[in-house]
Amino acid sequence: MQKLNIQLLLTGNELMIGDIVDSNSAMIAQKLLSLGLIIKRKVTIADDIELLINEIKSISKQADILIINGGLGPTVDDLTAQALADSCHLPLEEHPKAVEHLNKWSTLRGRVLDHTNLKQAILPESSNIIANKLGSAVGFHVNFQQCDIYCTPGVPNELEVMMEEEIIPLIQTNVTTTDNYQVLRFHTFGIGESDLQKLIRDKFQQWPQEIELGFRASSNFLELKLTIKNSKYKKVLQHYEKEISYLLGNHILSKLLNPPPTMAKYVIDLLIKSQKKITVAESCTGGLIASMLTSISGSSTVFEAGYVTYSNKMKHQMIDVSTKALDKFGAVSKEVVLEMAQGALLKSAANYTIAVSGIAGPNGGTETKPVGSVWIAWGTSSNIKTVYLCIRGSRNQFQIAVANRALDLIRRDLLQSDEVPFYLSNNLSKR
Amino acid sequence: MQKLNIQLLLTGNELMIGDIVDSNSAMIAQKLLSLGLIIKRKVTIADDIELLINEIKSISKQADILIINGGLGPTVDDLTAQALADSCHLPLEEHPKAVEHLNKWSTLRGRVLDHTNLKQAILPESSNIIANKLGSAVGFHVNFQQCDIYCTPGVPNELEVMMEEEIIPLIQTNVTTTDNYQVLRFHTFGIGESDLQKLIRDKFQQWPQEIELGFRASSNFLELKLTIKNSKYKKVLQHYEKEISYLLGNHILSKLLNPPPTMAKYVIDLLIKSQKKITVAESCTGGLIASMLTSISGSSTVFEAGYVTYSNKMKHQMIDVSTKALDKFGAVSKEVVLEMAQGALLKSAANYTIAVSGIAGPNGGTETKPVGSVWIAWGTSSNIKTVYLCIRGSRNQFQIAVANRALDLIRRDLLQSDEVPFYLSNNLSKR
Repeated sequence: MQKLNIQLLLTGNELMIGDIVDSNSAMIAQKLLSLGLIIKRKVTIADDIELLINEIKSISKQADILIINGGLGPTVDDLTAQALADSCHLPLEEHPKAVEHLNKWSTLRGRVLDHTNLKQAILPESSNIIANKLGSAVGFHVNFQQCDIYCTPGVPNELEVMMEEEIIPLIQTNVTTTDNYQVLRFHTFGIGESDLQKLIRDKFQQWPQEIELGFRASSNFLELKLTIKNSKYKKVLQHYEKEISYLLGNHILSKLLNPPPTMAKYVIDLLIKSQKKITVAESCTGGLIASMLTSISGSSTVFEAGYVTYSNKMKHQMIDVSTKALDKFGAVSKEVVLEMAQGALLKSAANYTIAVSGIAGPNGGTETKPVGSVWIAWGTSSNIKTVYLCIRGSRNQFQIAVANRALDLIRRDLLQSDEVPFYLSNNLSKR
Repeated sequence: MQKLNIQLLLTGNELMIGDIVDSNSAMIAQKLLSLGLIIKRKVTIADDIELLINEIKSISKQADILIINGGLGPTVDDLTAQALADSCHLPLEEHPKAVEHLNKWSTLRGRVLDHTNLKQAILPESSNIIANKLGSAVGFHVNFQQCDIYCTPGVPNELEVMMEEEIIPLIQTNVTTTDNYQVLRFHTFGIGESDLQKLIRDKFQQWPQEIELGFRASSNFLELKLTIKNSKYKKVLQHYEKEISYLLGNHILSKLLNPPPTMAKYVIDLLIKSQKKITVAESCTGGLIASMLTSISGSSTVFEAGYVTYSNKMKHQMIDVSTKALDKFGAVSKEVVLEMAQGALLKSAANYTIAVSGIAGPNGGTETKPVGSVWIAWGTSSNIKTVYLCIRGSRNQFQIAVANRALDLIRRDLLQSDEVPFYLSNNLSKR
């Protein structure tokens, strides 16, 4: 496969002061990836004519393809056409095809085309016009110093349609792409990046060079990605897919899905499949677990009630936690969380239960029960298990981590898995 | 003001193939803007040692400040330290302060520090270590060819705290910033961008050229930004600050704060101030309102109980909603939501209550109660009000919009405001 040097140049003052988050470049990258093409370098600058000319000149010397995004609007700070003309020593001229597009666009909206809009038809001589289905700004293409330069609008939905329907087909006809590039994703929960690397190092003395390993962590989720750059390695990939599946067991939530579902989605799907109901009794997560579950469409068939028992009084009143247990052991204790789980089960007549009680912080910690302490109870009426964890981080990180672990423990129960997840076997402070 | 050349270098394979959208650079830009500093240029590349060295060498020749983001993790594709060492001709060495941080970090998590993690302490000689409160990867700073280079972690929340608490203060001591550039933000809820623009156009025939107007919308929140580029316009800005405050009334949640607090934070603060308690009874939001409230530190003093009554049976059993009302009017009705609010108040002995019942979709809608229908009840035992809204969007958008509006209605009650918010006065389908 021909290795193309593809670069992206984004322009916009709002990008430089952080007023907007750039989602355009990720979208462009994904569309190119579908052709097996990867962007090599991305430069972002303000709407400044000198900076633009500098970058266009410098990038077009190195790159085979340059996609410029933004700066096609009607206002004075939209400078892409002028900058490109200056960089390539081309005069600007009115393009009849672009004028026609602008006329149509205005008429459809019951407007009269004015001088300001007409600026969008003044483009470098000999540019090829690229249709914009949704907006007034046409795109355009020039070839300069063996570099194909595509200028595209900054408005995300206009860009997306233009990429999909115009630019990707154009690039496709100019390059010979193959189906070489193949990616396999494992969506995992409960293993850290370094633990996972160690596992893989220990298991496979020699990881095959043909398969590139990638990791992406977010909270307690980790995506493990295996990439091959040539389809002749497909067999090797299949072999390692099996090996990794075996190695990670139920730490794997799913394969191949991107973007991956939430933890709650896995739990709801399993509950629906087994026709079981779940209830939750939450103290430190304050409704977050219930909210995660009910964010999933279809959850009403498996979830009827959640008890947000934030105070001791309410633990007693709502789900019959004994004042004896509360007084003797405190709210953050094995005994209380067990009674919470039992109480919620009894009250709601569900099959599965989760109860959590902990100290989310930043205040409220003591020497024996520091901020981050949490007791989790989970299971069915005949088999409620408990575990103590200490989870560091901000209040928010703590709440999300507790909720996801509690849901993962139920997911493992539903899978009838005996495996001990990493976050429990690593948990030295278990009680 | 000294015009600094500030550049950003982002590294990560996932950025190049569009696996993630980069939100870090917008956040860095906003923090720098608070010092009146603007990023000049931003380059994004894959985790490739040669590319990294090229960029570091080339940028450090031009820039006064270079912030490198990403590539500080423990894995083999994290290359920032090595690339920086090579670029600056500095040997790599183990930094005792970084080892100490890693030891502390591991101990807190009940782990043993291993070889893989220790890589994060191998940094260019004479680097200054920058603390990372939330993660294992310390940041580091070197000065090379008169360019201050700051290396920062790619994990967003780790980066945010490090920017706020470490790097911004460091930069602040090194540069003389002036107060020329001034930004005033209004954090508003419940007005759309076009409504707000119309309001302003109708009120001020001639908006002053000295003040730049900016808008940024997310869900039902809208940030209105007034910017002056020279402090001589301060008086004009003050005048328009008053005018806008008057025009928007209680649609304004706060001024000047960035990032703005969540809606729940405003509500919790007002409850604490007035020493009142709140309870919630949730059907279609399934615990989201309780979760938003309890995500705020200090909420335990004003929030004791939340009732997630997802099924009809549980509405009756947990908070005494009459089967008569459920049978006659259905779960999504004024009568039921009123009884939910009353029941929750009685059971929990709180002062304020919110109850919601609606159809989150995508399924479950009927002709008279389409997806998006919701009844909200809110107030105190002596004065519970109800309203019907129809909110379009995905299941998630619906749940978030309902939760925020319900909280906003309580916020207005707590402020003893008689104003009718835009989303109610605009609500043609009110019943």
